[in-house]
Amino acid sequence: MAMKLMRNAVVGMRGYAPGEQPTEGVYLKLNTNENPYPPSPRVVEALAAEAGRLRLYPDPTASRLRARIASYCGVAPEEVLVGNGSDELLTIAVRTFADAGALVATPDPTYTLYRTLCEIQGARHVAVPYRDDYSLNPDLVPAKARLVFIANPNSPSGTLLPEETLAAVARSISGVLVVDEAYADFARTNAAGLLKSRRNVVILRTLSKSFSLAGLRVGYALADREIIAGFDKVKDSYNVGRLAIAGGLAAIEDAAWMRENVRRIVATRKRLAARLAALGFTVFPSEANFVLARISSYPARQIYEHLKKRRILVRYYDTPRLADCVRISVGTDEEIERLLEQIAEIIGWRAGEGGGRGGGR
Amino acid sequence: MAMKLMRNAVVGMRGYAPGEQPTEGVYLKLNTNENPYPPSPRVVEALAAEAGRLRLYPDPTASRLRARIASYCGVAPEEVLVGNGSDELLTIAVRTFADAGALVATPDPTYTLYRTLCEIQGARHVAVPYRDDYSLNPDLVPAKARLVFIANPNSPSGTLLPEETLAAVARSISGVLVVDEAYADFARTNAAGLLKSRRNVVILRTLSKSFSLAGLRVGYALADREIIAGFDKVKDSYNVGRLAIAGGLAAIEDAAWMRENVRRIVATRKRLAARLAALGFTVFPSEANFVLARISSYPARQIYEHLKKRRILVRYYDTPRLADCVRISVGTDEEIERLLEQIAEIIGWRAGEGGGRGGGR
Repeated sequence: MAMKLMRNAVVGMRGYAPGEQPTEGVYLKLNTNENPYPPSPRVVEALAAEAGRLRLYPDPTASRLRARIASYCGVAPEEVLVGNGSDELLTIAVRTFADAGALVATPDPTYTLYRTLCEIQGARHVAVPYRDDYSLNPDLVPAKARLVFIANPNSPSGTLLPEETLAAVARSISGVLVVDEAYADFARTNAAGLLKSRRNVVILRTLSKSFSLAGLRVGYALADREIIAGFDKVKDSYNVGRLAIAGGLAAIEDAAWMRENVRRIVATRKRLAARLAALGFTVFPSEANFVLARISSYPARQIYEHLKKRRILVRYYDTPRLADCVRISVGTDEEIERLLEQIAEIIGWRAGEGGGRGGGR
Repeated sequence: MAMKLMRNAVVGMRGYAPGEQPTEGVYLKLNTNENPYPPSPRVVEALAAEAGRLRLYPDPTASRLRARIASYCGVAPEEVLVGNGSDELLTIAVRTFADAGALVATPDPTYTLYRTLCEIQGARHVAVPYRDDYSLNPDLVPAKARLVFIANPNSPSGTLLPEETLAAVARSISGVLVVDEAYADFARTNAAGLLKSRRNVVILRTLSKSFSLAGLRVGYALADREIIAGFDKVKDSYNVGRLAIAGGLAAIEDAAWMRENVRRIVATRKRLAARLAALGFTVFPSEANFVLARISSYPARQIYEHLKKRRILVRYYDTPRLADCVRISVGTDEEIERLLEQIAEIIGWRAGEGGGRGGGR
């Protein structure tokens, strides 16, 4: 009965399944790319200072945070929109650019939320396959696309497309390229430079990963001011609460704290990649705070399940192309050491027998 | 140029204008129906306890808060969805029930956001006029409406429709009735009882008003579990952050605090209404934390402007039907006393000359 009340698009879709967020038990969470280090202590101070003002609505445009992000990114405040996490900004982008039936393209495989958002909107989703090395042929992106989402670095591969490829996509389409830079702080480079040459580019960032604030829900969009004005019409008036504004401001004002955590995570990522290779995994070159690793000698799903029994969560995939892969978030050195010991035990790896070079020595 | 990239629906709309939220200067804010009393001290304690966990994503379904709301409202957890304020739940309702071109009806005048959300979605909005006394003829609501929003108590009138009228609307339409009960805690009654008899009813609530948490952004929907499952597909995965979940939980666990504040506000509302009547205003019978007051002898907009110069914000309206009205949020007794003194001065009221009965005695 209630089904008939809902749009067919909603009834027919599966819904996005977020990564496991256990509410009970003590897990080592290496499955949803959270930062293993805490946010700047200034965030907690700012939250305490703001907690006495919660009876009042927040500033609808988060103007202080917006101005701070603008100067941090070297753009004008009118070129910034603050969102309830970058997920909200993805939703706003779909609702701003894609009518029902419009063509929306994403490389594949990537963050599956993009497709879910198209389904909700009734847009037509086209998957453009990445090459085996996760490079992208821009000619395969449909020129009629009203909207293209590219996660860069990509999830779950961790790989980074060069700016030239993104520029080629932006030039070739009639619509808008949204570059989802959730992981860009962990990469050598980002694509913000495209904003100067292309008016049909939107850059999305989040404080969830590099700033260690997944629980606070703060993201931002950088784009042409007309696009930002359009987003502003589509967003909920009070989309970002007082605590998110205050905490986000404190976090960005202490970006040095974030950069130090990123430095440590990048160092651990290198060790993790090398050790997985030594255990016989093929590791995709990661520019994010996780690594995608392929193994042919042992079922990836069983690695996930065995690790879960040992209170460690990683991510595995149901899709054919990723069926032999696990994605592992980069924790602290100690956490990654613990993970690697367990993986070695699970796959029965012994020094001298592994598929990797130099394993165990 | 950027205009061509956006949906016509977005380019062509005006966007919702939220009430003034001054970021500078000290104003007595009686314009956006905030609660003059602080939230429960347990909220601040809960926020401090949660601030150390912000590096981790929130629980996607806010399951602890959801369960607490369910027991508070006497429904099952599967009949509850938690949102980033009830504004987000309004957006989710439109995206769940109304395809582009679908008919969406609201009484008029009411919360103008409903119309804005229809415009974003490309739905057709029909305004059903309230009678002069803000009663509603259910026969005027189009039977083909896929979605009807009724704010009850209504804003800006503060008036309450009886449950029979709401039931008649729910029976007569092919779609869904969303009863927006943002102000219901200030009213004699609410419409939650309709959920038992009608599967096409959704009740929305917020912690912004009665629980004094406008800055935290927490709202909830009560509905049939199939509808809630549909909402869950449409909402962003992590729509409610850790602090909103923790603070919301603490607030609901201390509902007695809220009820005491409501008791005080209702008492002040009665005094405010009587005093405005004595000054010559026609006051609509309010069941909310604000009153709508009409005056023919002095332009409402000028009352607003004069009050603003004196650092008091109230709300006035551009639309013909409300052009001679101001809406005043109920503050503390002291705040309302200050407001009334200023209004009396502005309209040049003197004892014995006012249009009201018994004024100034």
